Amino acid sequence: MADYDVITLGETMLRLSPTNLRRIEQANELELYIGGTESNTAVGLARLGLKVCWLSRLTDNPLGRLLAGKIAQHGVDTSHVTWTEEDRIGLLFLEEGKAPRGSRVIYDRQGSAASRMRAGDLPRPLFHPTGARLFHTTGITLAIGTDPAAAAAEAVSWAKEAGWLVSFDLNYRSTLWSPATARRGCDPIMQQADILFLPERDAILLYELAPDTPSEGVLRTIAERYPRALIALTLGPEGAIALAPGGEIHRQASFPAEEVDRIGGGDAFSAGFLYGYLSDKRGDSNIATALRWGAAAAALKYGIRGDFPVITRSEVEALIEGATGAGVVR
Amino acid sequence: MADYDVITLGETMLRLSPTNLRRIEQANELELYIGGTESNTAVGLARLGLKVCWLSRLTDNPLGRLLAGKIAQHGVDTSHVTWTEEDRIGLLFLEEGKAPRGSRVIYDRQGSAASRMRAGDLPRPLFHPTGARLFHTTGITLAIGTDPAAAAAEAVSWAKEAGWLVSFDLNYRSTLWSPATARRGCDPIMQQADILFLPERDAILLYELAPDTPSEGVLRTIAERYPRALIALTLGPEGAIALAPGGEIHRQASFPAEEVDRIGGGDAFSAGFLYGYLSDKRGDSNIATALRWGAAAAALKYGIRGDFPVITRSEVEALIEGATGAGVVR
Amino acid sequence: MADYDVITLGETMLRLSPTNLRRIEQANELELYIGGTESNTAVGLARLGLKVCWLSRLTDNPLGRLLAGKIAQHGVDTSHVTWTEEDRIGLLFLEEGKAPRGSRVIYDRQGSAASRMRAGDLPRPLFHPTGARLFHTTGITLAIGTDPAAAAAEAVSWAKEAGWLVSFDLNYRSTLWSPATARRGCDPIMQQADILFLPERDAILLYELAPDTPSEGVLRTIAERYPRALIALTLGPEGAIALAPGGEIHRQASFPAEEVDRIGGGDAFSAGFLYGYLSDKRGDSNIATALRWGAAAAALKYGIRGDFPVITRSEVEALIEGATGAGVVR
Amino acid sequence: MADYDVITLGETMLRLSPTNLRRIEQANELELYIGGTESNTAVGLARLGLKVCWLSRLTDNPLGRLLAGKIAQHGVDTSHVTWTEEDRIGLLFLEEGKAPRGSRVIYDRQGSAASRMRAGDLPRPLFHPTGARLFHTTGITLAIGTDPAAAAAEAVSWAKEAGWLVSFDLNYRSTLWSPATARRGCDPIMQQADILFLPERDAILLYELAPDTPSEGVLRTIAERYPRALIALTLGPEGAIALAPGGEIHRQASFPAEEVDRIGGGDAFSAGFLYGYLSDKRGDSNIATALRWGAAAAALKYGIRGDFPVITRSEVEALIEGATGAGVVR
Amino acid sequence: MADYDVITLGETMLRLSPTNLRRIEQANELELYIGGTESNTAVGLARLGLKVCWLSRLTDNPLGRLLAGKIAQHGVDTSHVTWTEEDRIGLLFLEEGKAPRGSRVIYDRQGSAASRMRAGDLPRPLFHPTGARLFHTTGITLAIGTDPAAAAAEAVSWAKEAGWLVSFDLNYRSTLWSPATARRGCDPIMQQADILFLPERDAILLYELAPDTPSEGVLRTIAERYPRALIALTLGPEGAIALAPGGEIHRQASFPAEEVDRIGGGDAFSAGFLYGYLSDKRGDSNIATALRWGAAAAALKYGIRGDFPVITRSEVEALIEGATGAGVVR
Amino acid sequence: MADYDVITLGETMLRLSPTNLRRIEQANELELYIGGTESNTAVGLARLGLKVCWLSRLTDNPLGRLLAGKIAQHGVDTSHVTWTEEDRIGLLFLEEGKAPRGSRVIYDRQGSAASRMRAGDLPRPLFHPTGARLFHTTGITLAIGTDPAAAAAEAVSWAKEAGWLVSFDLNYRSTLWSPATARRGCDPIMQQADILFLPERDAILLYELAPDTPSEGVLRTIAERYPRALIALTLGPEGAIALAPGGEIHRQASFPAEEVDRIGGGDAFSAGFLYGYLSDKRGDSNIATALRWGAAAAALKYGIRGDFPVITRSEVEALIEGATGAGVVR
Repeated sequence: MADYDVITLGETMLRLSPTNLRRIEQANELELYIGGTESNTAVGLARLGLKVCWLSRLTDNPLGRLLAGKIAQHGVDTSHVTWTEEDRIGLLFLEEGKAPRGSRVIYDRQGSAASRMRAGDLPRPLFHPTGARLFHTTGITLAIGTDPAAAAAEAVSWAKEAGWLVSFDLNYRSTLWSPATARRGCDPIMQQADILFLPERDAILLYELAPDTPSEGVLRTIAERYPRALIALTLGPEGAIALAPGGEIHRQASFPAEEVDRIGGGDAFSAGFLYGYLSDKRGDSNIATALRWGAAAAALKYGIRGDFPVITRSEVEALIEGATGAGVVR
Repeated sequence: MADYDVITLGETMLRLSPTNLRRIEQANELELYIGGTESNTAVGLARLGLKVCWLSRLTDNPLGRLLAGKIAQHGVDTSHVTWTEEDRIGLLFLEEGKAPRGSRVIYDRQGSAASRMRAGDLPRPLFHPTGARLFHTTGITLAIGTDPAAAAAEAVSWAKEAGWLVSFDLNYRSTLWSPATARRGCDPIMQQADILFLPERDAILLYELAPDTPSEGVLRTIAERYPRALIALTLGPEGAIALAPGGEIHRQASFPAEEVDRIGGGDAFSAGFLYGYLSDKRGDSNIATALRWGAAAAALKYGIRGDFPVITRSEVEALIEGATGAGVVR
Repeated sequence: MADYDVITLGETMLRLSPTNLRRIEQANELELYIGGTESNTAVGLARLGLKVCWLSRLTDNPLGRLLAGKIAQHGVDTSHVTWTEEDRIGLLFLEEGKAPRGSRVIYDRQGSAASRMRAGDLPRPLFHPTGARLFHTTGITLAIGTDPAAAAAEAVSWAKEAGWLVSFDLNYRSTLWSPATARRGCDPIMQQADILFLPERDAILLYELAPDTPSEGVLRTIAERYPRALIALTLGPEGAIALAPGGEIHRQASFPAEEVDRIGGGDAFSAGFLYGYLSDKRGDSNIATALRWGAAAAALKYGIRGDFPVITRSEVEALIEGATGAGVVR
Repeated sequence: MADYDVITLGETMLRLSPTNLRRIEQANELELYIGGTESNTAVGLARLGLKVCWLSRLTDNPLGRLLAGKIAQHGVDTSHVTWTEEDRIGLLFLEEGKAPRGSRVIYDRQGSAASRMRAGDLPRPLFHPTGARLFHTTGITLAIGTDPAAAAAEAVSWAKEAGWLVSFDLNYRSTLWSPATARRGCDPIMQQADILFLPERDAILLYELAPDTPSEGVLRTIAERYPRALIALTLGPEGAIALAPGGEIHRQASFPAEEVDRIGGGDAFSAGFLYGYLSDKRGDSNIATALRWGAAAAALKYGIRGDFPVITRSEVEALIEGATGAGVVR
Repeated sequence: MADYDVITLGETMLRLSPTNLRRIEQANELELYIGGTESNTAVGLARLGLKVCWLSRLTDNPLGRLLAGKIAQHGVDTSHVTWTEEDRIGLLFLEEGKAPRGSRVIYDRQGSAASRMRAGDLPRPLFHPTGARLFHTTGITLAIGTDPAAAAAEAVSWAKEAGWLVSFDLNYRSTLWSPATARRGCDPIMQQADILFLPERDAILLYELAPDTPSEGVLRTIAERYPRALIALTLGPEGAIALAPGGEIHRQASFPAEEVDRIGGGDAFSAGFLYGYLSDKRGDSNIATALRWGAAAAALKYGIRGDFPVITRSEVEALIEGATGAGVVR
Repeated sequence: MADYDVITLGETMLRLSPTNLRRIEQANELELYIGGTESNTAVGLARLGLKVCWLSRLTDNPLGRLLAGKIAQHGVDTSHVTWTEEDRIGLLFLEEGKAPRGSRVIYDRQGSAASRMRAGDLPRPLFHPTGARLFHTTGITLAIGTDPAAAAAEAVSWAKEAGWLVSFDLNYRSTLWSPATARRGCDPIMQQADILFLPERDAILLYELAPDTPSEGVLRTIAERYPRALIALTLGPEGAIALAPGGEIHRQASFPAEEVDRIGGGDAFSAGFLYGYLSDKRGDSNIATALRWGAAAAALKYGIRGDFPVITRSEVEALIEGATGAGVVR
């Protein structure tokens, strides 16, 4: 049995936002949440019952300790984080808005400790055959700096060497790099990955597909580029589709959800998908399970404030089994 | 003229819940409300202008005083509550949720002072012919313990003896007893009651009716069991229907309402219904008035945070007379 | 180039309201906003980039300074306000509600410093040819007292004398005067105004039109009464229409918006309209621009808590150019 | 046995203040408390166990209902308040400060419903021999308007006629009247009162005594003017002294207290004093008891936020018996 | 090297208290903290850098998960907690007060999951020679029920068997048992313990010593009863003294501290003491180090809200080395 | 008459801190204030009645607009700030603490827009003979980057050229530069300044004086280095001393103050001093006035939360004239 089920690697930030739909210019105080795609997914996986470790580099000050502690609160092992006296903790300011204004994110992550994480900061000894079953990271880790990109590449090669699965979420961020740079930057890891997550709009943008390409077409295009990976394409309100090498396209509708906070929905999808995938090893039918858990975890996340999927396994199971969640349970 | 219009009897709890749709695991503070079905109805009746007394048993500590004080704030007489140094104040934790998760209630009421209330704790001298016009309690009081069940039975017999009306709300709680136990437990008081309130889903469950029984069929089934009572069946969004012995079925649609907090809606319905019934004594047409006031009070309650129907008589009247409540009055 | 683009004149109040949809009777604290139609419009104009001055009379205490400071925060010049040791700051209590209850405003403005503002309190020297391009006030200033009504009339005459434009928003308030008094009271300034804003329902009420008069009919009726003015009629969800002397009726649909706080929407419309009008001087096509900016500013305002249109020029431009505001910008 | 032990009469206001020692100019929200000298004393008396009724005149809006409800929460009977559709609820803004700035109160009570209360608004039938044991009002009621002054004078004459005791607290407010006017205005009621409360500094100011007059000298001067009254002179940190006609001066030190909120300390003193006086009828030794209860209630009040003495009888008893209150009781 | 440095065992509760020194009767919301003596000490030890595991029994609901998560946030391993669907989470309500009132705690812990913890719930396999270096529990665990008392006794015997140190804090609670019962109940474990913590006032009470016994005399009396243990007697503001078998009495003054929240001060002392003791193995001089770390950790805790000692090792070191903490570090 | 009385130049940051003495690791939300030494002084001067302009460089996003708006709220002209789409807004996190822990500031200002401000960003045309009477900046502006240091040097030379006074506050920050670098870096501007503010501990550190040098000795040492400047040395609780070229040493005790928030006290001193100096032009006696206003403004600031001296001229006057601020003004 492996020490961990999943190890994830990436940057996490403090998220600060006014309460009560105030604009930042109207705020006297800011609510504080924690978020980063890989730790969001780690939190989801740990809450569903897996043993999870999150790797990163943090400044050893109250902000860094707050961040690690809030992740540990949900059962993720943060004891292999690298601590430094240097650099800073990345921030993002979120100003929630209703249509026609929309929510707005102001990133303030330049010079963060994570953006200066090197391969040498990673706990190399963890990467042995029974160290974990799966390693997960995303395109954001590649985008925030050449050092973390190199560190992630190293980690992937160690993971492959140890015989683990590797999963990767494209997670394109236009404020960090251009589509072309992102496509080139992510390619080497995507070539090695066993599982790929791509938001459909990112796939269309990076691979320069026609905006009206049918989802299946987008998925097949990716599959041609990355023929050895199981590929999950998330379609927003339309759900998700997935395709394993040599298999059929599986389709999963999204579960209806009232939206409280959509940030972190994709990360919850990844958590649910990986949990379903790792828990149910029956070959191809496995993909349907994984998609269903991914869609259910994402739907529950939409109703939760903050980036973390603060869900339970029984909630996901109940949703999959058809409980509607209307009314009050009492 | 009676000392009180209505006397109610039951348990009330502190209700604690995170603000801003946070989950309990994310909370740093909990908002505090007060709620119990019989005191909710008492608050509604007092705010509509009746003289109301609420009977219960409370631990004499700051929590108990908070609870009684918040009820007294709305004009309900709490001076006949029995105070004890023993036991505790019941609690409920409410975690609000949006679909697909739904809100969740965690009851923590074991060993509460109210659950150990005995007939001897009740102010026997109040139960004389001009002491009140109506006595009201619910199935929850019967479910929380054999002592309060016996106390309620005594109170009902005293009320009947004094010539008052008795009203009873079935209010089935699956966390407190089984449908069969509830059916048997409530029967003696329901046989004596002049007015019965039943949520349709509870009626179907307890009397083992087919789930697709038409509402009228459910109502007539109850009427056969309890032929001497005026029976009001609440149908959720479909409104309510009522039937007096030997009369016609009256139907009342629900008033459209945006939901802020649905807990206490049924209690507000009872308050409105009883107010309408007691205020307008014209025989059968009375039932239509009662239903209208019940539906209007419930609709206004849905827009109010907390269990209490913090409404005014003029708001109910305006709603009945057709004011829509759209926009801002200024 | 003028010292100011726009000078506005009127009363502003503290707005106090419970948070979280609580009723006032449930409140332990009140959230504080600032609002008055003319300063709301001034804030909108300043945020869009114009030089704006707001004239009023305020009591020199912490409440008055809070009020002026919050207006100055958004770039409006408040240095010409008259300060007095006498009188008080007007208040309004807002209790937000959902249907069927609706929001309710309790005005508490009797005896305010602004309601005792006289012409002698105004900075007469500002009113010279290059002092400003436009003077703006509303029917509320005429309604709150004979002194401010006389002061506004004087200011309008000075503005005309100086060759400025004059704009006027009817802004009828039933708690301050009757329709007939309002009609007579506003007439002299409306006869002189170059731009008139009228909510359609106010126009129907004051000029005793049939409730089902088509909007165009209402507009033309006003135009007959005030033939020298550009008239903008706001239609609520139906948008707005406008007519310049001898011109065509221009129509602007409203932009879809989720409503957070509708108070101040009309003032934001005026701000957007005046900005568009003053920025784009191409004769009649100008009116279309003005209507579009007005509608966009109002739509954005609906999503902002408080009376102020805390918007930016780029947000208005993006809305006009078709950005939908769905999702999160990141 | 009397219907009430004590009936008090006066104005009560909403008290609004920033939290956390912010200045009003820095506030985004205001904390809400309720306060008025006579209702503060009523709350104290009710919490100590007496039957208490508070008389006043209130505007029937959410603010007025909030105010009455918060008083009723502590067991005071507010059912004889006169409600009106007219006028407004008085306000005070409190800006807490530390030395050298000090706290500052901004009164905004002009035109309040209470300031227009007439004798005809009072429930004349309550004033019969077994209606109450004591009637209490203060100089503030005389200062806020000629109508309430006349109403208070009437009430005092009815109370005397019914054979009740009358107590009166001078409670001079420099923002309402001058020392000379206050002296003349209060004299008629003070001549009839059985118990008089005077802060020493008010006594020195109104009776134009030398600032360095010893407290005993001040007390004797008052006693000469009002020879039929039991006079209690409060000395601030030095405690209080009292003198009954023909008796000895009793002296009571103040109980040490850490100050959280000193507003309402004098009203708590009156509550404690009257409770002690009415509960312990052993002639002169009674005064010592009354002083002790007054001083203890005031000391406990200093540690309580808001104007109300939210105390319990057992807390006062424990303080009098010497419990120090240091540490945590657990 | 051991798997853990320290394993602790006990009950932890949710602590709910009004903010801002409000009384519970004035509260609209309650702030939420977590506290239990053994988990407080565990948090302190983990924050100082040791590997710590906390054992308990918790109800598997959001309250239980909140509680475990908040402990895990600070680095304590909670993965060996026993989860149950039964019972409840214990609560305590804290009403902070200033002299003369004092703070008051209302326990509501009857029927908690921890009070029904049995030996069979404990992870027996952890108790092997390299499982840990020290096991810690307190008298509260013995007091809350016969089941947890038996479980604690078992755990102590397993720990001794495995060759670990055992430490025990008397921590007498008068609301849970009488002094005589506590003395008898704690004796068996105290006979086996290697380190004993006793608050001086508890020692005087349980062993019926004269209240004016000098601290050294108290310490020597305990040492005679428990001759094989290192005994640390905490003296409140006077600091602490300790005595090892056959050694000298060591004395440590307390570090001056402004008190924000004194609850948990003793637990922080234990954490600091055990850290110092386990980190510095030089025989008797070790005791001086342990006392110094204990006193410093306690002093820092007094300035921290909540039960947890949210301290860092460098803060304790700086305090021991003489940094005063006056002013702002910037 | 000059356009402005004072122009200041420097960086301002958002200050984020937990409420209620929580540690950052315990926070769910952060309170937001604004602070920077030169804008703090500008706010003080504007509130005292002078015309003040603050120069800086800000990122044009909601954080930058919040920052400028909060400064403008107090009457400072921010219209000459340079706005950029680049860079970021500097932050500081403040964790308030009581002894022995002390408050802690975490700066996060690397790469801020202000740290990249160049001379070319400054509004050169303002610097003409009637543009202002005095220019003020501090050592922090010189420390945050070579660009702002050069910009400040340019501004000083323009100011001297225009015939204005120049004042400079040493304001040493150990996190930004070493004492020796600071000494060298500040020297050129200090040689040109007419007024110099130095905290005594900074002076001792930078000029390598013996820690026990008497304050007068420190002052004279500075005076020898900068013989053409009026030098004010602030001594913390001991007040301040000042010396003009060829004059006597003036001494001013500090006014007693209860400390709510000491950050910004020195900036308030500068504001008071400059106000007193500029308002009272009677040669040497002027210095006594300036010192008195400086000490009074600083004492009032200690009682105000946030960096800004939210004071009024009448509060300063009252303090100077001897009002004690004890008790409540009502």
